[in-house]
Amino acid sequence: MRVLVPDRPEFREVRVENTELSFYSREQAPPENAEGLVLWFASPELRRELLGRPGLRWVLTLTAGIEHVAGDLPPGVTLYNAHRLHDRAVAVHTAAGMLAAARALHRFRDAGREGRWATTMDLGTLDGKRVVIWGYGHIGRLLEELLTPFGARVTGIRSRTPEAERDAALSEADWVVLLLPSTPETKGLVNAEVLARLKPGAWISNQGRGNLIDTGALLDGLNSGHLGGAVLDVTDPEPLPEGHPLWAQENVIITPHIASTTADLVARGAEYTRAFLSEMAAGREPEGRVEAGQAY
Amino acid sequence: MRVLVPDRPEFREVRVENTELSFYSREQAPPENAEGLVLWFASPELRRELLGRPGLRWVLTLTAGIEHVAGDLPPGVTLYNAHRLHDRAVAVHTAAGMLAAARALHRFRDAGREGRWATTMDLGTLDGKRVVIWGYGHIGRLLEELLTPFGARVTGIRSRTPEAERDAALSEADWVVLLLPSTPETKGLVNAEVLARLKPGAWISNQGRGNLIDTGALLDGLNSGHLGGAVLDVTDPEPLPEGHPLWAQENVIITPHIASTTADLVARGAEYTRAFLSEMAAGREPEGRVEAGQAY
Repeated sequence: MRVLVPDRPEFREVRVENTELSFYSREQAPPENAEGLVLWFASPELRRELLGRPGLRWVLTLTAGIEHVAGDLPPGVTLYNAHRLHDRAVAVHTAAGMLAAARALHRFRDAGREGRWATTMDLGTLDGKRVVIWGYGHIGRLLEELLTPFGARVTGIRSRTPEAERDAALSEADWVVLLLPSTPETKGLVNAEVLARLKPGAWISNQGRGNLIDTGALLDGLNSGHLGGAVLDVTDPEPLPEGHPLWAQENVIITPHIASTTADLVARGAEYTRAFLSEMAAGREPEGRVEAGQAY
Repeated sequence: MRVLVPDRPEFREVRVENTELSFYSREQAPPENAEGLVLWFASPELRRELLGRPGLRWVLTLTAGIEHVAGDLPPGVTLYNAHRLHDRAVAVHTAAGMLAAARALHRFRDAGREGRWATTMDLGTLDGKRVVIWGYGHIGRLLEELLTPFGARVTGIRSRTPEAERDAALSEADWVVLLLPSTPETKGLVNAEVLARLKPGAWISNQGRGNLIDTGALLDGLNSGHLGGAVLDVTDPEPLPEGHPLWAQENVIITPHIASTTADLVARGAEYTRAFLSEMAAGREPEGRVEAGQAY
């Protein structure tokens, strides 16, 4: 079996019985066709080219989401995702952002860059805070395990949660954490109406996809003082351009879509690929198969 | 029984049977002598004046440390501390700083203030990290409970830990967290020699007292690249003056001695005082009595 994988040193070291690897860079791939494609670090153009190649039978995408692949997937090609590779770091990153916000580390950093020892009393913890995790799946459960010792009271809501129940949870929330994928149904889900439902001073954390939130409505909610602040690993637009008004918000903590990133991520991705290919080579079904119609 | 308490709205509401409260501001106290003194928010001058008043039988200090009181305490006056009021927030604050450092929130904040979406791969979590808590008491145990779900492996060391055991733990540490009080023995404890023992890239968190660390040695360790960084809630000198070289260190996360602060701290302090005075009024011994020779 021939498989196309990213040309990274960590992938060059992968060895699997009965499996031949070919390596592509961000913009270029070798001409030989392959049965399998491990997709990571390819440009959108190369990605489309690779997905259109004849003979392709399956794709493993090592990104957290699949929406950029699903649209270009030819009929009959099986798609696998790699949630497990990303989930733990995302949960840790989300907890870190919430705690940093509660302890105002962002405001102390701003003061420190000006050399100011700026004491404030306006600090909190997560004790007794009501946290709504919107998009309560594997990452959400991990996050709940991390937040519970801090005294947070977590409510998970999903797409099948009845609307009245969802709205009741939102109206009580001190924190709303978005872990939803980007689908036609979730685009702009957090709009002015949803934001208005939140308690004054509530914070939002978006660790899902940038377009879950209507950015204009978010800015309005921040500027009016209704929202306490936001912790965003994803934005709309993304990357956030220089001069965008979100950068100027004191209580918006922004990270550049790195929630799942760790220094050893590529090594972990290569190891994930090795284990995946070993399952394939042994004739077993690897985990992560995306069913038809599954959006994430 | 007459008791002097800080003149804060939350304390004005305290009512305890058989107990009369008198209120002092930061610089001024009413002339009447009192049997008890609840010490908080007094200037150093007023504190010394109050501690020297005739008829004083006991002092409850609502600060976390007691070193500023112990030196001026007349013989025969009983001192009580209020550790419990501060411990939980300090543990939460410490965990928040460590997670923020691991996820580089400080560096992303710096980039964001310049409008830069600056992706980096140089990120971590606390999974598998060895954390040495130096000064392992009640706060340390709370901190361990918070860090364990993040995969940190905690070792606690105390003043009675044998030196060889302590040095072995330090040489393995990814993080050293200082929760020690300020005593003649702990001053400058973390000097160039101790810092040199740490693994390259290790981080230090000081949530105890600023003079535990030799600031010059810390700066040397940071500038040489031996240390990964530091999270400091306390500094020496303190407050850290404008232009001090610690402000200019990218990987030094500084907060202005607020680890135990929460927005409801004064309300919690007043409630603590009410419960304390109720015990006293009922003829029971309240918790927190500092034994002679106890340094914290």
